[in-house]
Amino acid sequence: MKQRPFIILSNDDGLYAKGLQTLIEILRPIADLLVVAPDGARSGMACAMTANVPVTLHRVSSVRGLRMYSCSGTPTDCVKLAIAQLLKKKRPDLVVSGINHGDNSSINSHYSGTMGAAYEGVMHGIPAVAFSLCDFNPDADFSPLQPYIVDIVFKAIAFGLPPLTCLNVNFPKAQKFNGVRICRMAHTHWDNEFTKARRPGIPGRYVYWLTGDRVSDEPQATDTDDWSLSHGYVAITPETLDVTAHQLIDVLKEVF
Amino acid sequence: MKQRPFIILSNDDGLYAKGLQTLIEILRPIADLLVVAPDGARSGMACAMTANVPVTLHRVSSVRGLRMYSCSGTPTDCVKLAIAQLLKKKRPDLVVSGINHGDNSSINSHYSGTMGAAYEGVMHGIPAVAFSLCDFNPDADFSPLQPYIVDIVFKAIAFGLPPLTCLNVNFPKAQKFNGVRICRMAHTHWDNEFTKARRPGIPGRYVYWLTGDRVSDEPQATDTDDWSLSHGYVAITPETLDVTAHQLIDVLKEVF
Repeated sequence: MKQRPFIILSNDDGLYAKGLQTLIEILRPIADLLVVAPDGARSGMACAMTANVPVTLHRVSSVRGLRMYSCSGTPTDCVKLAIAQLLKKKRPDLVVSGINHGDNSSINSHYSGTMGAAYEGVMHGIPAVAFSLCDFNPDADFSPLQPYIVDIVFKAIAFGLPPLTCLNVNFPKAQKFNGVRICRMAHTHWDNEFTKARRPGIPGRYVYWLTGDRVSDEPQATDTDDWSLSHGYVAITPETLDVTAHQLIDVLKEVF
Repeated sequence: MKQRPFIILSNDDGLYAKGLQTLIEILRPIADLLVVAPDGARSGMACAMTANVPVTLHRVSSVRGLRMYSCSGTPTDCVKLAIAQLLKKKRPDLVVSGINHGDNSSINSHYSGTMGAAYEGVMHGIPAVAFSLCDFNPDADFSPLQPYIVDIVFKAIAFGLPPLTCLNVNFPKAQKFNGVRICRMAHTHWDNEFTKARRPGIPGRYVYWLTGDRVSDEPQATDTDDWSLSHGYVAITPETLDVTAHQLIDVLKEVF
């Protein structure tokens, strides 16, 4: 790399989440950063965008090499605004999202606002990497991730991911990792997804809290992100935004 | 089919949107329906789910063959609740989402709550079809779609889509269609995505309205949903929920 990389950062746990603040600490020595993150938690927001009301954007700090903004919208809104409103001459080398407090592997990727931010970079032709730690604790220990994040960010910039692809990187909760594995997304599903609870104050009314258990549909497979995480490896899953089921096109032409 | 199909319906424009009410009218004569839809507009919600607060579910009507519920959550929440809380003995044959007021082809699929509802069915092993009309008008004319919807729903049930796949069906705004085409998702991107506007009441403050133009990255391609829609065809795009970029796995193993 000839010059300092320029990276857009976002997340879905909000600007002041420890995961994002850790990412800023890790990347600031090696890159210029534009941080645009939600003003609070936006977990489970996927690629949601704010369509019917306007969003706000507030500058939190602006020093050389680190500009930070807080946004009222979703992770997707944050990256859209960074690209559409806040870029100067320099084109970003990478969008980095996270570090998420919680597992975004397998089917969770579809719900993840962390992935939503990464996808948005890709949709604008910017390579993207999302980082998540399988630990929901707001005070989770992110220190073991540091050398891996630096390495993956440098390689993603130098290697330059192909159009329409990004990396979904998940770390197991551990003090030490067994290494890095390139994986496919495990096929899993969620079960027991709600807890029904009485609505205080209104007799006979109920509300539903999202809960649930993720169940593997292929517990024997060893080439998945699920397997890597449960065996102490950092799981790197390349994802594509071209979600066409190409293998079905000719089959469906016979049916429809 | 031996017996009347059983279909879960949802959408992202809300329970009382004309698109969903049209879908109910079209499908009620041929299927038993469980309708769970948001209590208002949830456009652009993608696969977002309500993670931090509970959601409510209200029975609007319950007659033989047509149960309807209104939900405070997202399209994803609606389908999750339908499956987790409202199913009796009979397993659904299909999840149908729509008819969306607006285009969900190409890159729009990633932001679409209509697709979010369909994806949720697939995640629970239920085949799913999403219908969208390229017309944002709340009073859009859905009547030309009727025979196509019946045909596609019957074929989707009879054919039984493979695991992890669903159909994203978009109709051009027209009184008559040139036929049906099986397509891949066009590669496009959004440009000029925000309109900056003064915040009334607070001098010097601005807000950002999501706007924008979708731009094709492959205007010559004829096998895409974009091409089909602009040439008067109904576009059926099969989508997969396994978003692994499989072609990248071996390449990345050399890099990381």
